[in-house]
Amino acid sequence: MKVAVLGAGAWGTALSVLLAAKGIPVYLWARRREFAEELRAYRENRAYLPGVALPALVWPTAQAEEALEGAELALVALPSRAVREILSGFPRAPLYVSATKGLELAGGLKRMSQVIREATGVDRVLALSGPNHAEEVARFLPTASVVAGEEEDARRVQALLNSPTFRVYTSPDLTGVELGGALKNVLALAAGMVDGLRLGDNAKAALLTRGLRELVRLGTALGGKEATFYGLAGLGDLLATCYSLHSRNREAGERLVRGVGVEELLGGRQVVEGLFTVRALVEWARAEGAELPIFEAVYRVAYEGEEPLRALSALMAREPKPE
Amino acid sequence: MKVAVLGAGAWGTALSVLLAAKGIPVYLWARRREFAEELRAYRENRAYLPGVALPALVWPTAQAEEALEGAELALVALPSRAVREILSGFPRAPLYVSATKGLELAGGLKRMSQVIREATGVDRVLALSGPNHAEEVARFLPTASVVAGEEEDARRVQALLNSPTFRVYTSPDLTGVELGGALKNVLALAAGMVDGLRLGDNAKAALLTRGLRELVRLGTALGGKEATFYGLAGLGDLLATCYSLHSRNREAGERLVRGVGVEELLGGRQVVEGLFTVRALVEWARAEGAELPIFEAVYRVAYEGEEPLRALSALMAREPKPE
Repeated sequence: MKVAVLGAGAWGTALSVLLAAKGIPVYLWARRREFAEELRAYRENRAYLPGVALPALVWPTAQAEEALEGAELALVALPSRAVREILSGFPRAPLYVSATKGLELAGGLKRMSQVIREATGVDRVLALSGPNHAEEVARFLPTASVVAGEEEDARRVQALLNSPTFRVYTSPDLTGVELGGALKNVLALAAGMVDGLRLGDNAKAALLTRGLRELVRLGTALGGKEATFYGLAGLGDLLATCYSLHSRNREAGERLVRGVGVEELLGGRQVVEGLFTVRALVEWARAEGAELPIFEAVYRVAYEGEEPLRALSALMAREPKPE
Repeated sequence: MKVAVLGAGAWGTALSVLLAAKGIPVYLWARRREFAEELRAYRENRAYLPGVALPALVWPTAQAEEALEGAELALVALPSRAVREILSGFPRAPLYVSATKGLELAGGLKRMSQVIREATGVDRVLALSGPNHAEEVARFLPTASVVAGEEEDARRVQALLNSPTFRVYTSPDLTGVELGGALKNVLALAAGMVDGLRLGDNAKAALLTRGLRELVRLGTALGGKEATFYGLAGLGDLLATCYSLHSRNREAGERLVRGVGVEELLGGRQVVEGLFTVRALVEWARAEGAELPIFEAVYRVAYEGEEPLRALSALMAREPKPE
């Protein structure tokens, strides 16, 4: 058994640690050769996952051939915007698992499994998603996750990844699992705005409850199943993201409130996926005439200069009605 | 217009402040005469809601007749265990709104609206529930809530309570709205245990997601509607409770982890409703053969001396399977 993990960010590194702890050799591919050397030298990912020792079974490399040669499986943990380009030039694996949350927005919304399929020509593509902060997974704190796709392959990946601290469920709803991970980032921005404005626990709970309903409406219109969005890859991921200090998207919402502009947030070292996602979705919703007041509010604050307190108050001021 | 608020705890006081701010005279009934006098003297509920000024339109009284005479509406904000006894001896109001979250457990599970109906003989009984920490409502932080029951009365109460900072939705699902407020306290105990054991954000998100699914299974079996449990009075209340420092139930879970016994928790000044609720529900579930692993785990820790870490690990160790 040999697994290739593509992408040496926090999540790719955490998944490598998890697999190595199960006795599985992992080739961890990093884009930059110097970074791969640094990982090998320190046995630690000081840039993205400091404080976690890389087990001996994790072999960092910048050579795609070395990583993928003879690998039964490739776990893709690249930034969403890099997946297509990087995989196009790589040797193929027989089976891919997307651990990247995000959507490709050029030429219509595409989920990562679709991008991987197009870039590699390989049909066997699954997705892994759930409430999974890398920092906690790599420290063996108890975590649950979902692997979605064709049943037999999903069960194979479940068996591969499942461990006493990482509980893996299967799901046939690939579309829903991928959408949950992408859409929740928009609500994380909204949650960060509520935090930044100190609106309180009541307001945050109401916003996320109403926001999840909006996410379900949007996600089912895009082909996902309602039950998926109320499960680990929807609600679960939403909670882990919106109530955690680890989340970049939530933090970006706080920074928007403090007056940091969207250009600065997009120019940071780590990608704030929700800012791309909300733009694509609101443009889609406006074209379709779909009503998404919370997604709209986030968009207007991020891209149209609306004041956050005003945008959130407008949500409260809508006519009272049946729930 | 005159409203009686029965019960001068944090929630009854906050609702009084809210109504008075809308120009509605409120008679706030407190059980003990000295306490009513204290409220009148300080214009502040120093015991249960310190730091919030009582508006002039709030009249604290220990006389039921004074509170209820000519009142169009009685808001019931009493401890669940006291509702039946207190209301039995009181003059009647034409319309009741239960703002008490909990279940009566003597002789089968009864919701508060049922208890009020039996104690007063009045049929027009609604319930108010949602993510509503009194401390925040009384400070006019934005909050959403649900009033449930017969449509016309629900709309009347919605109009009465709705304000720029307190957004009220209506629902026909009285059963579901009341069950959501009661059952979520059990999950709050579980969330407190996860907090106390420092298991992390991933574990807490997974527990609450799986726990909500359990709550939905149980709540629909008891007559509530699934959509209600995913709304403000279910999920919303769950979030406000499980992610807030204000919550007594969540805190009780933390204290169970630190070795505080259930007797001590039940003997405190403020009631930990979840401890009663979980006992009644698990006894019910065992008799029915229903599978409720998370509710069971809370019960075993609270009442059967099981070690919390062991109980929570057992949840993780169950066979991996489809979500």
